[in-house]
Amino acid sequence: MEIKSYLNSKRQKVEKALQKYMLQSSDPFKEHIEAMRYSLFAGGKRIRPILCLAAAAAIDDSPKVEACLLPTACALECIHTYSLIHDDLPAMDDDNLRRGKPTNHTLFGEAGAILAGDSLLTWAFDLLSQSEITSLSPEKQIAITNIIARAAGPLGMVGGQALDIANENREFPFDTLRTIHRNKTGALITSSIQAGAVGAGAAADKVDKLTVYGNKIGLSFQIVDDLLNATATTEQLGKAAGSDLDRGKATYPAFFGIEETRRQARQAVEAAKDSLQDFDHKAEPLRALAEYIYIRSN
Amino acid sequence: MEIKSYLNSKRQKVEKALQKYMLQSSDPFKEHIEAMRYSLFAGGKRIRPILCLAAAAAIDDSPKVEACLLPTACALECIHTYSLIHDDLPAMDDDNLRRGKPTNHTLFGEAGAILAGDSLLTWAFDLLSQSEITSLSPEKQIAITNIIARAAGPLGMVGGQALDIANENREFPFDTLRTIHRNKTGALITSSIQAGAVGAGAAADKVDKLTVYGNKIGLSFQIVDDLLNATATTEQLGKAAGSDLDRGKATYPAFFGIEETRRQARQAVEAAKDSLQDFDHKAEPLRALAEYIYIRSN
Repeated sequence: MEIKSYLNSKRQKVEKALQKYMLQSSDPFKEHIEAMRYSLFAGGKRIRPILCLAAAAAIDDSPKVEACLLPTACALECIHTYSLIHDDLPAMDDDNLRRGKPTNHTLFGEAGAILAGDSLLTWAFDLLSQSEITSLSPEKQIAITNIIARAAGPLGMVGGQALDIANENREFPFDTLRTIHRNKTGALITSSIQAGAVGAGAAADKVDKLTVYGNKIGLSFQIVDDLLNATATTEQLGKAAGSDLDRGKATYPAFFGIEETRRQARQAVEAAKDSLQDFDHKAEPLRALAEYIYIRSN
Repeated sequence: MEIKSYLNSKRQKVEKALQKYMLQSSDPFKEHIEAMRYSLFAGGKRIRPILCLAAAAAIDDSPKVEACLLPTACALECIHTYSLIHDDLPAMDDDNLRRGKPTNHTLFGEAGAILAGDSLLTWAFDLLSQSEITSLSPEKQIAITNIIARAAGPLGMVGGQALDIANENREFPFDTLRTIHRNKTGALITSSIQAGAVGAGAAADKVDKLTVYGNKIGLSFQIVDDLLNATATTEQLGKAAGSDLDRGKATYPAFFGIEETRRQARQAVEAAKDSLQDFDHKAEPLRALAEYIYIRSN
């Protein structure tokens, strides 16, 4: 399967949907909505929305199912974008560069960036709960909303970020690093997969298997991010390279070295693909996505 | 009707529900959840949850309806609390005192406070979308979630706060002040009323009338807040008095003077009560709440 053309085609659908569902910048909140739009349309890879659509397609690859999950896919990207805006703030990681562009707060100020993040997060739940833009049943909508809220909140993404910040410049055991990664990065990725599966009407055992898939690619995604931060240049990354080390953050390479880290990423990819054994050809995109996430590390 | 004992009784129910539905502080996110709990249990008046329950009771005052709306009521308080934490941040209003206690960031740091706010907001949507803790139908749950998300986001509360921050130390027309107030304070208050009404199964015309009620008490609430900020002491308020003036914020008293401002607050209360003309005795608490909100100003 040609993963690049698959990604391009899905990314275009997601972009179109984001343009459709995101607010237009207009009075009286012109500047605020501009701040939201700036980061949302700053060139993200749209991995989470694409994972959501690919998981749905692994269950039911009809255009109708894809269409009814586009608002969900967009909501996931809004949440991811808000998390980047807040992570980049001076009080957090204090980053000036993201995707090769100035971070939100360098353009809109700290208050503007905090509020842009708050609004993207809230808008995500607005999208998830609109009934006019999807043919998902209310049962499915509420189930998906809960999956995503749980993953994005104190027991998931935000909890992981809080633990990450609290442990900067501290020695801590590998278990803590695993907890940080699982929550900060893994939870939202897994929820993207679960949301797609539930939206497409997957049976419980299929949801479970896709959850394993999500956990494993979430892990490999974060390991590869750690690798790239340690080995790539700022120009390649579009954000500050080596910043983890500068900031005294523990990473997989710091615990295991580069080679063993790469091996563990590979192992996670294999485990992700193994979890799809009971799935047919409709899961090909998920299999290819697992490889794609790994391949960034080479 | 004895508003004080009514408020006490409802407040106790809300406190109990908040204790039940809020996360306990435990590993691995102990400190983070403590930061959330600190502000959530810092002695708020629980006005929004009570308005939600009172609006529901105006339609159907059975205990069953109240019970199924308690998670909604708690979610509203989580959103209100998050908004206070973020408003108090150094990059925003830079307040050190709230309800007579240190603000969140003075205890948990800026990063900790930003994340505590993020998690309270996300947890609100988790509560709104849990199916095990309410007998609301998924249809009603999703409708309520959308009402609240819309009110709390870029076209409501956060938009209003962004406009407020952007206009500090600027001259602007009264229309802008009205837009700030309507969104920053009014939107979430109105949505509390609407959520209660929809949860209780109100017909569309009743929801419309309760929406007018919500808009009017939201207005009087904010006018009274402006009055108190201008006339009360820091000790009376539990937060910095006169801070609006210090910060170059436009307020009702700045536009109209104290007496005319008080007259407008009174007018809003009358309009709120007028909107309840078609409601029977079950709306007594709402009528009394409108008076209670006004009475703070004297």
